[in-house]
Amino acid sequence: FCLRNPSEHQHLRYNPLRDTWVLVSAHRMKRPWAGQVEKPPEEHIPRYDPRNPLCPGNTRANGEVNSDYDSTFIFENDFPALQPDAPDPGSDQHPLFQSKAARGICKVMCFHPWSDVTLPLMKKHEVLKVIDKWAGLVEELGTKYPWVQIFENKGAMMGCSNPHPHCQVWASNFLPNEPALSDRCQRAYYKKHGEPLLLQYARQEAEKKERVVVENSDWLAVVPYWATWPYQTLLLPRRHVLRITDLTTGEREGLADIMKRLLTKYDNLFEISFPYSMGWHGAPTGTHLKEDNSHWHLHAHYYPPLLRSATVKKFMVGYEMLAQEQRDLTPEQAAEKLRNLPEEHYKTREN
Amino acid sequence: FCLRNPSEHQHLRYNPLRDTWVLVSAHRMKRPWAGQVEKPPEEHIPRYDPRNPLCPGNTRANGEVNSDYDSTFIFENDFPALQPDAPDPGSDQHPLFQSKAARGICKVMCFHPWSDVTLPLMKKHEVLKVIDKWAGLVEELGTKYPWVQIFENKGAMMGCSNPHPHCQVWASNFLPNEPALSDRCQRAYYKKHGEPLLLQYARQEAEKKERVVVENSDWLAVVPYWATWPYQTLLLPRRHVLRITDLTTGEREGLADIMKRLLTKYDNLFEISFPYSMGWHGAPTGTHLKEDNSHWHLHAHYYPPLLRSATVKKFMVGYEMLAQEQRDLTPEQAAEKLRNLPEEHYKTREN
Ligand SMILES: O=P(O)(O)O[C@H]1O[C@H](CO)[C@@H](O)[C@H](O)[C@H]1O
Ligand SMILES: O=P(O)(O)O[C@H]1O[C@H](CO)[C@@H](O)[C@H](O)[C@H]1O
Repeated sequence: FCLRNPSEHQHLRYNPLRDTWVLVSAHRMKRPWAGQVEKPPEEHIPRYDPRNPLCPGNTRANGEVNSDYDSTFIFENDFPALQPDAPDPGSDQHPLFQSKAARGICKVMCFHPWSDVTLPLMKKHEVLKVIDKWAGLVEELGTKYPWVQIFENKGAMMGCSNPHPHCQVWASNFLPNEPALSDRCQRAYYKKHGEPLLLQYARQEAEKKERVVVENSDWLAVVPYWATWPYQTLLLPRRHVLRITDLTTGEREGLADIMKRLLTKYDNLFEISFPYSMGWHGAPTGTHLKEDNSHWHLHAHYYPPLLRSATVKKFMVGYEMLAQEQRDLTPEQAAEKLRNLPEEHYKTREN
Repeated sequence: FCLRNPSEHQHLRYNPLRDTWVLVSAHRMKRPWAGQVEKPPEEHIPRYDPRNPLCPGNTRANGEVNSDYDSTFIFENDFPALQPDAPDPGSDQHPLFQSKAARGICKVMCFHPWSDVTLPLMKKHEVLKVIDKWAGLVEELGTKYPWVQIFENKGAMMGCSNPHPHCQVWASNFLPNEPALSDRCQRAYYKKHGEPLLLQYARQEAEKKERVVVENSDWLAVVPYWATWPYQTLLLPRRHVLRITDLTTGEREGLADIMKRLLTKYDNLFEISFPYSMGWHGAPTGTHLKEDNSHWHLHAHYYPPLLRSATVKKFMVGYEMLAQEQRDLTPEQAAEKLRNLPEEHYKTREN
């Protein structure tokens, strides 16, 4: 038995960013699927819809009118999960009934004035504008808040209720669970091994090549060794970078390039607009800006739900929720499949 | 501001079983939903279907023929994620590329010979048979394996691909992430407070009442203070019990009673067969049987996905996957709603 032919035997893999394990049972792909099938993503979206609250010039739920924007457009979420002025819940602080104040701000950013494009279909200079705005938002909100979470829910399957290309930014007065865990793991690794975990990881993967999906001189996209979602990827800069705000102009251009290529491959996999949730993790901000955060390395996680086709997703349910995440193909198999896909988008391919 | 009227203000709550926080933003229920709607569960399932591999007397994928069972029926999963004899992956054990052998066994248990019943529609003595078999499986597999995970994925929405009432049992040679975390948290609490976490919690909730959904002399079902899923519940015995095998005959009867009542309320909430994933957590087994596990307290988690109606679920996506789980109604609101529902099943109610 060796990892080149693991499709016959289940095993566990360690996720050093979360200090957890994933069960890899690749032989499960052979099982027939008689369960739920999803509605494939809507393929025909009008470029402009007078009723869509995200389009330029339209009126939103709260009566505000969008500007007639021709690039990106940022506004405050009309139904924010975090507001700046929530009072302290003042619980009794019994160890089993602990509560804390949560304050913050939720913003929405439209990527483009058109509803019928997505990041992989946008031009490189348009994607670059999105990246600059991401950095701008982290810069701005990071002066006040310790955590600024940029994330994109893409596709109805991932709870996205508006087809217009957009992401969200939720900044909070607390470090949420996932970055807090990632911070602990990266800090411990740095202390023990003297090098940032993800910097070492990026170098190793660049050498090994078997999990690399796309790369350029500044960036690397891999299916991580410990991936849980079938086609999960991790996007990493090659240089040691703490935060998205620290990226050079060249690195931002490289990021626009690799994002376009990665997301084009995603769309090409099942020839649909590939659903996912993605988000950025970098060193914390706010008061953490003054601390030493050398153990951190900027990265983006892409979590796409589909497993077998445009309509059959991986269900993370009973065993996964109660015991441990389990995957049905190896990360190497997923990486190879993505790597071998064309870099030209199926929608713009001539034939 | 007080917790009796928290619907206006977001706050964080602590989950002592996982050492994590959940963001409660109850005002989000006001936001309109224009996103994905699910297919409601199939209401008309034939009692016997000659093509259903779970029905009595039918032939399964591997050619085996089911017995002509008239109560429960247990067999080995035809597409197991865990097999008893997987070899050691023998990785290089670089700290970023760690793997381990995973061995185990996966079983399926049919609850009843009929496909058109579910636990809440079964008779109490039939539910009792299921409980006895659960205990029997933990007894049997627990002699060899440190963890025996009993779980039920109910409904196509939860990845269940067969409407016949059944659950699964996956036993492993390792302690999976979730029970390992729960073990650490319960152990630390016991050391610090001298009482098992969940025993103290059950007593407190029985007094407070505001999160109790149903109870009887031996059991309590609550929407936990730290619930993440909209109508999540936690089922707890009142007496200190380590494992399902330790339940007395009276406690098993009480469990059949409370399960039937809780699951009837679940079905009555939106008048559909309510989807969920559920599972049992008790003290670990195998070599752990000889250790002191007094910090453990047996419990079942119910994780149902629906939020607003039979067709609108809560999406745990971008922010939840990348940062922290967020809920849209308070646990107290959910408990009150469930508590006030009738205990007679909508399908058997006369009118
Ligand atoms: O074992 P089943 O019913 O084929 O599969 C279902 O439950 C498993 C355990 O939670 C999951 O891994 C699968 O994604 C799900 O479809
Ligand atoms: O903010 P939206 O797009 O209304 O909502 C979506 O993303 C949120 C953040 O991940 C989730 O909490 C919601 O369940 C999901 O539907």
